[in-house]
Amino acid sequence: MSADRRLGIATVCLSGTLEDKLAAAAAAGFDGVELFENDLVASPWSPERVRGACADLGLTIDLYQPFRDFEAVPPDVLARNLRRAELKFDVMRRLGADTVLVCSSVSPDTVDDDELAAEQLHALAARAAEHGIRVAYEALAWGRFVNTYDRSWRIVRAADHPALGVCLDSFHVLSRDVDPVAIRTIPGEKVFFLQLADAPRLRMDVLQWSRHHRLFPGQGAFDLRGFVGHVLATGYSGPLSLEVFNDVFRQSEPRAAAVDAMRSLLLLQEAPDTALPLAGHAFTELDVDDVTAPRVEAALTGLGFAPSGRHRTKPVRLWRQGEARIVLNHRDPSGGGRVAVSAVAVAGADPAGSAERAEAFLAAPVGSAAVAAPDGTSVIFCRDDLGWLADFTAEEVGEDSGAGLLDTDHVGLTEPFDRFDQAALFYRAVLGLEPDDVAEFAAPFGLVRSRPVVDRARHVRIALDSALVRRGTWGPDVREPQHVAFRSADALASARRMRELGAPLLDIPANYYDDLDARLALPPELLADLRELSVLYDRDEHGEFLHFFTEVLGDRVFFEVVQRVGGYAGYGAVNAPVTMAAHRGRRLAGR
Amino acid sequence: MSADRRLGIATVCLSGTLEDKLAAAAAAGFDGVELFENDLVASPWSPERVRGACADLGLTIDLYQPFRDFEAVPPDVLARNLRRAELKFDVMRRLGADTVLVCSSVSPDTVDDDELAAEQLHALAARAAEHGIRVAYEALAWGRFVNTYDRSWRIVRAADHPALGVCLDSFHVLSRDVDPVAIRTIPGEKVFFLQLADAPRLRMDVLQWSRHHRLFPGQGAFDLRGFVGHVLATGYSGPLSLEVFNDVFRQSEPRAAAVDAMRSLLLLQEAPDTALPLAGHAFTELDVDDVTAPRVEAALTGLGFAPSGRHRTKPVRLWRQGEARIVLNHRDPSGGGRVAVSAVAVAGADPAGSAERAEAFLAAPVGSAAVAAPDGTSVIFCRDDLGWLADFTAEEVGEDSGAGLLDTDHVGLTEPFDRFDQAALFYRAVLGLEPDDVAEFAAPFGLVRSRPVVDRARHVRIALDSALVRRGTWGPDVREPQHVAFRSADALASARRMRELGAPLLDIPANYYDDLDARLALPPELLADLRELSVLYDRDEHGEFLHFFTEVLGDRVFFEVVQRVGGYAGYGAVNAPVTMAAHRGRRLAGR
Repeated sequence: MSADRRLGIATVCLSGTLEDKLAAAAAAGFDGVELFENDLVASPWSPERVRGACADLGLTIDLYQPFRDFEAVPPDVLARNLRRAELKFDVMRRLGADTVLVCSSVSPDTVDDDELAAEQLHALAARAAEHGIRVAYEALAWGRFVNTYDRSWRIVRAADHPALGVCLDSFHVLSRDVDPVAIRTIPGEKVFFLQLADAPRLRMDVLQWSRHHRLFPGQGAFDLRGFVGHVLATGYSGPLSLEVFNDVFRQSEPRAAAVDAMRSLLLLQEAPDTALPLAGHAFTELDVDDVTAPRVEAALTGLGFAPSGRHRTKPVRLWRQGEARIVLNHRDPSGGGRVAVSAVAVAGADPAGSAERAEAFLAAPVGSAAVAAPDGTSVIFCRDDLGWLADFTAEEVGEDSGAGLLDTDHVGLTEPFDRFDQAALFYRAVLGLEPDDVAEFAAPFGLVRSRPVVDRARHVRIALDSALVRRGTWGPDVREPQHVAFRSADALASARRMRELGAPLLDIPANYYDDLDARLALPPELLADLRELSVLYDRDEHGEFLHFFTEVLGDRVFFEVVQRVGGYAGYGAVNAPVTMAAHRGRRLAGR
Repeated sequence: MSADRRLGIATVCLSGTLEDKLAAAAAAGFDGVELFENDLVASPWSPERVRGACADLGLTIDLYQPFRDFEAVPPDVLARNLRRAELKFDVMRRLGADTVLVCSSVSPDTVDDDELAAEQLHALAARAAEHGIRVAYEALAWGRFVNTYDRSWRIVRAADHPALGVCLDSFHVLSRDVDPVAIRTIPGEKVFFLQLADAPRLRMDVLQWSRHHRLFPGQGAFDLRGFVGHVLATGYSGPLSLEVFNDVFRQSEPRAAAVDAMRSLLLLQEAPDTALPLAGHAFTELDVDDVTAPRVEAALTGLGFAPSGRHRTKPVRLWRQGEARIVLNHRDPSGGGRVAVSAVAVAGADPAGSAERAEAFLAAPVGSAAVAAPDGTSVIFCRDDLGWLADFTAEEVGEDSGAGLLDTDHVGLTEPFDRFDQAALFYRAVLGLEPDDVAEFAAPFGLVRSRPVVDRARHVRIALDSALVRRGTWGPDVREPQHVAFRSADALASARRMRELGAPLLDIPANYYDDLDARLALPPELLADLRELSVLYDRDEHGEFLHFFTEVLGDRVFFEVVQRVGGYAGYGAVNAPVTMAAHRGRRLAGR
């Protein structure tokens, strides 16, 4: 795809007044907007002022939308609809917009007659042409009779008017079981507009699915790359324009949402697999303060870590065990008893190149070879030769404690519900990580959605969680928890050794093991060990998973130790409600 | 129905740890619980301790649930399932629970063979009986083969074991197109358990519908009264027990949710139409402070109200026009520039009786003949002979300003998203109001859900709104807005007179009228008047609606004037996004 292609966004994608939306679209670098009629109707700005504001912001109005329920109607209804259209053409003249979207009818007035639809759309196009306006006819997936793109195209072809073409919307095409390949048979000059939206695969009423659950490309399950390929193959030369109805975006801060939208289009235009390969997690940085530093250091010691370096210029200390590394940053000594993951550092062959790519995807740089994730966490790119260790003075390190940690398995971050899809897209674009399937589970305090992102080689994993509906004052004491998970080759041995070393490990209720026995009938010796050591267990068709946790240190951070046996690629989500309840129990007991 | 029937609630209805849930259920007056297995598994309490805690709280454990994927399987799977069941029977013995829920299988192991299912369920029941346990077999609406109650009953009948009966769940029955009347053919002693849940009518995957969108009885669209009638006709003597999976309740404060749950069962057991009739809105009380009182008084004056009395003992003043009355309460002079609806007063023939009914529905009394709504607003019951005016000294009142207000049409209250369904149920129970259909619309800052509640005679209307997904710092300046709407016989004349009187009326954008013209082709004179006076318009098959608004006074309250022509029963929801944007525009301009 050409990077020169114009990029657009429908105002309905963004929250706020029309003024807010236009400013956000311009700030994110969009070339044009689809102006959603309701946004204009509710605006105190005249069409002329909207036109001027767009011009000042460098935005064109690529589409006025939508015009509904026009075609295949009795003559009296046609007369009313043509009057309505003429009034809208006048608004478009004042706006300086030259393409109007006409959706296939859902009206009880419409009849199942493609010839009549073509004849009436021809009449509409003739009127439009007098105003220099083009009509883009779109098959809604829930159109009363016209609900597939091929049928809308047959009608447009039959109408045969130069001011009439089709609008192709990825949602309306891909939500139905119609092969999109026939798009290639449409001449490019008859594709008047292209609207893009991704979506999760949901089994529900298609109208509700469309109105509430669309996503930006790369956030859902649709093959948008293939879809856009078909459309561009026609010779379509118009913009790639997003039309995303989403309950969360409707109320999200519009500037951040617009950046996210732009990032999705940049990613869509990139060739697959161009992200630079990653070697693994280099380190995870935690911010600690005078209250929490001793607790975290004691926990790390209990897990078998040893201090192994001090930063030459910053109040930062490196802890290490095998290839697992934690950096404690003491930047705010009076932090109020908090611990937080402040940076995720990944190793690769070309940190500068990775940072450049990240910035090309609109990530804000923070220092050299580091960018800010949407939640404020830094992503740091390190060379995989450990050259960055030169920033640290080596410390005398005692003997290995024998706790058996190998490296970092994953970092777990909890995102606010309205940044969850953004976060997944950010890591996808910036690090080239691929999202795994979404998991949802009922935690003790509400529904949690989980979507890990992982690189192809499974060297870097970030587990993103979000509480979907969060009450205010009542709730878990641990808000937006974060964790770092280390890999062990033998979780039971690690747990045993860590208990000897005094690690603050989380106790798991006996009821969990009784249920595990009932569910999985594990060998009695294994079950006894798991129970004794408070190690949790899961298995699937690929392998087994053993994992255990520390208590929460400070207000939100804990550590996890995992052992993957065979090809188990998950994160033990089945156990999450149990560990969440246990974490809360410990916090209450500790009061 | 008998008020002596035992009432129960599944722990899965409530948020928190098992300890939180049991405490909330007991505090709301439930007799028993269905213990959801995951709640036990995540609990640090042993089964014996749970049993003791329930006994201490006066709760029985009426059902242990769920046991899944048992029946109609190959022999090796049956052996595993029986082992699993024996382990659960042991947990039940420790809990002191004597009934287990077995859901119809969704497993790939199960086959379509009712005879085999009956044979294996017989074997399970025989094992259960040895432990004094009964098995309640339930057809899940998405069971692989057994997914209707009549089929589950045929299997139970064929199995013919005294320890095997059916569990009837209103969701699983009413979500499918199977007539529930055949429930009456089941002998009552074979109905082992009755689970109740309401739900909105949704067109979506039934499993997702069930897991996320169930509601307490009276909050949804199901005919639960009819359903329970069928079940009780069998002679069923067990508890009425709620099993409601709901994303919002999963994270709501559990004590309030449990009260709501109990209120729903009390309402379900009440005979229809027993609420005392209401004569109308007596008055609406607003809390004002030193900053806002002058603004509100000026607005009322501009709307043609006149001061007409001072309370004999409180810093309260009455404003009146026709039968429309506003009481301004100056209880907190240094309130920080706030205005809020503090009380909705309704008139009726028997205020004491209405208050008694409200308290029977668990409404907290506040003073005499007044109760607190879930959002803290008071509901005051007044005698319809205006005897309450004796609390006020009459003020000299000038001439009628001729603004034409007749009375109060409705009060609009915005509820937090997690109190919305509670609020509707509260007014339904306490005032006998019936909910209208839910409307949802895309407001400038996110989705808004609206559900008016109204009495049969349409004398008292409360319009409940809720922002479904609300972002934090970014958003409208008006948080949880409230309004009082007055009725006029001629909205255009009222608007004209109020503009002369200097009322702070809200201006509506010209674009709105251009669109109204395009949509409805109103007579040009009417359109010109509406446009000139910033009056909004709607119509439906029953009649017409004209309405206009004041600006927001203080932080959240505004007034509305409405004219209903013919049988129009709505609230002009189609115009709400426009007025919300206009209200924001005024607030921004006023900065």
